[in-house]
Amino acid sequence: MPVERVKTGIPGMDEILHGGIPKRNVVLISGGPGTGKTIFGQQYLWNGLQMGEPGILVALEEHPVQIRINMQQFGWDVRPYEREGMFAIIDAFTGGIGEAAKRERYVVRDPTDVGLLIDVLKEAIRDIGAQRVVIDSVSTLYLTRPSVARSVVMMLKRVLSGLGTTSLLISQVSVTERGFGGPGVEHAADGIIRLDLDEIEGELKRSLIVWKMRGTSHSMRRHPFVITDKGIIVYHNKVLRVTRRGVFEEELREEGE
Amino acid sequence: MPVERVKTGIPGMDEILHGGIPKRNVVLISGGPGTGKTIFGQQYLWNGLQMGEPGILVALEEHPVQIRINMQQFGWDVRPYEREGMFAIIDAFTGGIGEAAKRERYVVRDPTDVGLLIDVLKEAIRDIGAQRVVIDSVSTLYLTRPSVARSVVMMLKRVLSGLGTTSLLISQVSVTERGFGGPGVEHAADGIIRLDLDEIEGELKRSLIVWKMRGTSHSMRRHPFVITDKGIIVYHNKVLRVTRRGVFEEELREEGE
Amino acid sequence: MPVERVKTGIPGMDEILHGGIPKRNVVLISGGPGTGKTIFGQQYLWNGLQMGEPGILVALEEHPVQIRINMQQFGWDVRPYEREGMFAIIDAFTGGIGEAAKRERYVVRDPTDVGLLIDVLKEAIRDIGAQRVVIDSVSTLYLTRPSVARSVVMMLKRVLSGLGTTSLLISQVSVTERGFGGPGVEHAADGIIRLDLDEIEGELKRSLIVWKMRGTSHSMRRHPFVITDKGIIVYHNKVLRVTRRGVFEEELREEGE
Amino acid sequence: MPVERVKTGIPGMDEILHGGIPKRNVVLISGGPGTGKTIFGQQYLWNGLQMGEPGILVALEEHPVQIRINMQQFGWDVRPYEREGMFAIIDAFTGGIGEAAKRERYVVRDPTDVGLLIDVLKEAIRDIGAQRVVIDSVSTLYLTRPSVARSVVMMLKRVLSGLGTTSLLISQVSVTERGFGGPGVEHAADGIIRLDLDEIEGELKRSLIVWKMRGTSHSMRRHPFVITDKGIIVYHNKVLRVTRRGVFEEELREEGE
Amino acid sequence: MPVERVKTGIPGMDEILHGGIPKRNVVLISGGPGTGKTIFGQQYLWNGLQMGEPGILVALEEHPVQIRINMQQFGWDVRPYEREGMFAIIDAFTGGIGEAAKRERYVVRDPTDVGLLIDVLKEAIRDIGAQRVVIDSVSTLYLTRPSVARSVVMMLKRVLSGLGTTSLLISQVSVTERGFGGPGVEHAADGIIRLDLDEIEGELKRSLIVWKMRGTSHSMRRHPFVITDKGIIVYHNKVLRVTRRGVFEEELREEGE
Amino acid sequence: MPVERVKTGIPGMDEILHGGIPKRNVVLISGGPGTGKTIFGQQYLWNGLQMGEPGILVALEEHPVQIRINMQQFGWDVRPYEREGMFAIIDAFTGGIGEAAKRERYVVRDPTDVGLLIDVLKEAIRDIGAQRVVIDSVSTLYLTRPSVARSVVMMLKRVLSGLGTTSLLISQVSVTERGFGGPGVEHAADGIIRLDLDEIEGELKRSLIVWKMRGTSHSMRRHPFVITDKGIIVYHNKVLRVTRRGVFEEELREEGE
Repeated sequence: MPVERVKTGIPGMDEILHGGIPKRNVVLISGGPGTGKTIFGQQYLWNGLQMGEPGILVALEEHPVQIRINMQQFGWDVRPYEREGMFAIIDAFTGGIGEAAKRERYVVRDPTDVGLLIDVLKEAIRDIGAQRVVIDSVSTLYLTRPSVARSVVMMLKRVLSGLGTTSLLISQVSVTERGFGGPGVEHAADGIIRLDLDEIEGELKRSLIVWKMRGTSHSMRRHPFVITDKGIIVYHNKVLRVTRRGVFEEELREEGE
Repeated sequence: MPVERVKTGIPGMDEILHGGIPKRNVVLISGGPGTGKTIFGQQYLWNGLQMGEPGILVALEEHPVQIRINMQQFGWDVRPYEREGMFAIIDAFTGGIGEAAKRERYVVRDPTDVGLLIDVLKEAIRDIGAQRVVIDSVSTLYLTRPSVARSVVMMLKRVLSGLGTTSLLISQVSVTERGFGGPGVEHAADGIIRLDLDEIEGELKRSLIVWKMRGTSHSMRRHPFVITDKGIIVYHNKVLRVTRRGVFEEELREEGE
Repeated sequence: MPVERVKTGIPGMDEILHGGIPKRNVVLISGGPGTGKTIFGQQYLWNGLQMGEPGILVALEEHPVQIRINMQQFGWDVRPYEREGMFAIIDAFTGGIGEAAKRERYVVRDPTDVGLLIDVLKEAIRDIGAQRVVIDSVSTLYLTRPSVARSVVMMLKRVLSGLGTTSLLISQVSVTERGFGGPGVEHAADGIIRLDLDEIEGELKRSLIVWKMRGTSHSMRRHPFVITDKGIIVYHNKVLRVTRRGVFEEELREEGE
Repeated sequence: MPVERVKTGIPGMDEILHGGIPKRNVVLISGGPGTGKTIFGQQYLWNGLQMGEPGILVALEEHPVQIRINMQQFGWDVRPYEREGMFAIIDAFTGGIGEAAKRERYVVRDPTDVGLLIDVLKEAIRDIGAQRVVIDSVSTLYLTRPSVARSVVMMLKRVLSGLGTTSLLISQVSVTERGFGGPGVEHAADGIIRLDLDEIEGELKRSLIVWKMRGTSHSMRRHPFVITDKGIIVYHNKVLRVTRRGVFEEELREEGE
Repeated sequence: MPVERVKTGIPGMDEILHGGIPKRNVVLISGGPGTGKTIFGQQYLWNGLQMGEPGILVALEEHPVQIRINMQQFGWDVRPYEREGMFAIIDAFTGGIGEAAKRERYVVRDPTDVGLLIDVLKEAIRDIGAQRVVIDSVSTLYLTRPSVARSVVMMLKRVLSGLGTTSLLISQVSVTERGFGGPGVEHAADGIIRLDLDEIEGELKRSLIVWKMRGTSHSMRRHPFVITDKGIIVYHNKVLRVTRRGVFEEELREEGE
Repeated sequence: MPVERVKTGIPGMDEILHGGIPKRNVVLISGGPGTGKTIFGQQYLWNGLQMGEPGILVALEEHPVQIRINMQQFGWDVRPYEREGMFAIIDAFTGGIGEAAKRERYVVRDPTDVGLLIDVLKEAIRDIGAQRVVIDSVSTLYLTRPSVARSVVMMLKRVLSGLGTTSLLISQVSVTERGFGGPGVEHAADGIIRLDLDEIEGELKRSLIVWKMRGTSHSMRRHPFVITDKGIIVYHNKVLRVTRRGVFEEELREEGE
């Protein structure tokens, strides 16, 4: 029985995942500042809408109004989908304070209360029949309390997977950190996609690597990607190799593993 | 008097162990996220069942229902063995909460209570006459209390070895950590098998090395392995060499030590 | 709809930013001691005044009187603009103590009270219709309380962006630190410009790199710059490359990304 | 007056020590997991028995019953010597709990009480006229209280040296640690023998080096060793050299220092 | 309007500073043990006296009597200048205890009380009309309280700069530390001169580099220096280059920046 | 006026110090375990006795009885000098407990009380007219209280220098530590002599370097040394060079600095 998959729709990404993310997986999108994690998450949700799959964005870092503006800059206008009940932003940013916040449908009054967040999340998933969820960022939930990181991720995983969604948890790591967000978090996730931005001989290079993905094989290579005004494009047939002699971007002839 | 051994049944692994794990040993399976520790443990238990050796999986990271699904993806359907009383999952994940949990036979109501866990474990070992036990993961038991790590492992070791089982303790280490799970833990174990996932020139490579194994000699080399849809295959006649000139996967002609 | 931009006016910098800083962005200017962060911020404000854009400097590190003297050494005499109500220094340095402080219009009586600072900032922005704000340095606000860093930056971001300004937050990092001011801070900012001063083979070299900038593409290269008696000049058509064979300053023929 | 020495009897080791360990020295046997520290200590005691020198093993890590089994696997059956009163295991592991423990002669009821341990140790040394003592491991005594490490070692040193024994203190260090067990411990010991297990180009290599030994000169080289089914064999006429060009095991023609 | 400068008078140093230290600057003299920081400060004061500029040495590390002896070894006899009221040592070392201390004019009774120190300092600056101040060392004031480092330096800066002096703060860093004395300190100073003592291929080499200096351009190179029986001599026309191929001391033909 | 010097009498060492240690200096003898610090101190005291200079050894690490035995192994029998009142051991080890301790003349009842230690030290210095003092080790006095390290060293320095002695403070650093015993300590000392024991390509090499010495110039090179059965011999006309191509022991033709 082949595994059921959810297409990311991000050019090149589903090839790397050998078809998409296995359904119900909770995947960490891990990276430093400026690596494109937020765009990755928004593009995943937008592409879901185009395929008729309702989605939810849990906003912990940015005002919902600003998120809609940012997405529009890539041509992703979510407002019609919000009106149709196919998309929702959960406002866990404003705490319900401010004029704009009053117009939001899903508001977490106290963003530091993870139990409350989960209640609103459950309600929203059921309301719109969400198949995709993105939490941006999950790190915010335990930034000042690293010891609860694992239990927060475990709680979210139970709800997200239990209600049948396939979800991305944006994990912020420091620019100097080689991990994915701490031992508790990185072992709890079903998958880890690492986004990197590295300065190589005076130039910033973007690349990503799928570190783990439960339920499927996947490319074991580091692939370069770019951010365009249409969103992310991943070069699934190229590999970024850092060797002792230099850095090479190579065309792949056949994708082995 | 030759040492009594337990076959892992994982292709290539028993050759590396010069015949298998010495009976009653408590072995740390140590590795970062995505290295295949969980699959290693499940394959060890499944192979035991095929040889008529009853086994127990202590589930601390995943819902028992999900574990059965995951194992089935490799063709390992444990349910018939559960019905025959040859296999059991100890649910130390749900705390007995939820519909599915109510159907589990062995439940640890409070997973943070190691004494309680050990009581349930003893009962299960005796009930089914377990010869193999896997705890996935032991790290969960002391993640937020590193100072008790050694005493937890010592307590488990006394029970597991005392009741005659040969057991694996899955030890989660961070992707950036070179150790095996802390000084207290790594000295207390009878054996250490380290699973690694390394990015080498833009490509992820899997390998393992037996760092220690009380009661037997063993390969002193780093061996590559792969994860297929049938589980892990270890290349006992290959070695992964990281040298100053590059990384080489070499055929071994004769296994020396 | 093209993004609205604010020109830095610093020679070479707007080319690197592909036209300027997107309006309402809150940008971290991050660097070690002696890298030129303060000059960068003052030059940004002065250039705004020349283009008719009112600005505010929040002084947390230096006496307002000294700041005016320092700016004058680069030929930037802000006093006429202060009289016209186009420029203001918010004194969050003296606490209102001393003769000179009594002549300041905007004074934060208790610089450790971030709420108070924000109140004065809001008032000043409205009074002069500020379009540019520089906070020198934001690090001072959480130097001894790193756990509040993210929430301080989030609070400032809401006010600065909400009131329509395009602002720079000077972030002090230690000379040995590779990050930009901590995980909470670097993910919260809309943009990060890193200023560096490196000793390379016995000589100090200045360079900067735009690490992230929401709402625009930008140069992905490390560019050398100098500090002259007219302020900063960035070489947007040069790149500083640190390779295995040495350090090279190279002319760029065409700017690719 | 030549220094009085105690032969380790470990093949190759006494050559490295230029005749043996100076009498009354308290020597740290320091190494990571799997390096062979425990076997080194047991072999030292067994060889003493063969030369008519009574010995004591203080068991802090393993059940006395298991220790006897482990030693027997190398052909070292200590039970006849225990009956003759030439050898004793001090059980500081079980706390006197369990059937088997009841048959032990020397039991430390509370292994966390160092004063109690020392009382039992003194009694045992006098009873059997011990000339050799091994404490396996001394690290256990201060694992969770590093600040008392030095005072514990000082107390032991006074008793062990004062009663005329020549003793080994097994010191567990983490696999990633380059020290010998902390500053307080490593300066207090009369000698330090470091056992290493290093992965070199995909292969585990064993070696040891005598870092210090009060009262005698000794080899200043790193020597390879193996663990066979007869115990440790040290290659005193070989040296393991890790150079910039590779790793070499070289035959020594003449041992210089 | 050209910046007013204070000559250090140290051979080679004013050339490196393109004329001297800008007046009123507070400069960190930062370095490890044995790098010559104290001599640098004393030579700066002595040279001031020769040019008719009164100076003050705040003694936190050494007895005033010993300081006078040490200075005399370089031929710098300050006693005549003390009698003329052109030079003063503030004794913040003895606490006023001891016979010799009773003969000191400026004594800080409680050297841990920074407020008290500042009161005595103000009085002394006014008494002798000091134009130069050296605090040896400022690190002593916050060695056990790193969190107050920035506020101590800020307080001193206000007084020293406010009263018109040009001053050096000796900052002690550990031999293994690459910073200048902590983020709070290094950003607060107007200038940083780093003194280094490095072992290069078995030989100790002295060098210094001006890391920052507000109000002036300066050499951006690392310059070798020596300590002779006449004090420090800096080779402003030589540069110490540490490259991949070795360490070179090179003659500079023309000083570029 | 040439500086008054104290000869160490250690072969090769006074050449390195350009004549000896300047009188009244307090010198840190810093090194890891097994580097020879204790022997260096004892040899310094013994040589003093041969030149008619009375000396004191403050014993904090070893029983006075054992120290006399250890010194005798190098041919240094201090007992006649003790009887003549030219030499004394201050017992700060036993706390006055034990038979042997009762025969000691100078005993510090509570070795954790630094004030008490200093009282006994003062008395002993006056009794025997000590010109040399060695404290072995000073680290013991602040091992568990690093924050008092500087003040302890300052107190000792006042007494030792004030009473006219030239003294060595043995400073224990961990084998992995590159510093000299912490910032407070290393800046407070008048001189620092670092003793090293390094494994270089499988062989232990001894070397020392004078890092600082107030009041005199000194060799700026790293010199090899050996420990023989007559004590330390330093090769002042050899230098140990660790370069990119290997490690070389080179003959010096002329000692430059």
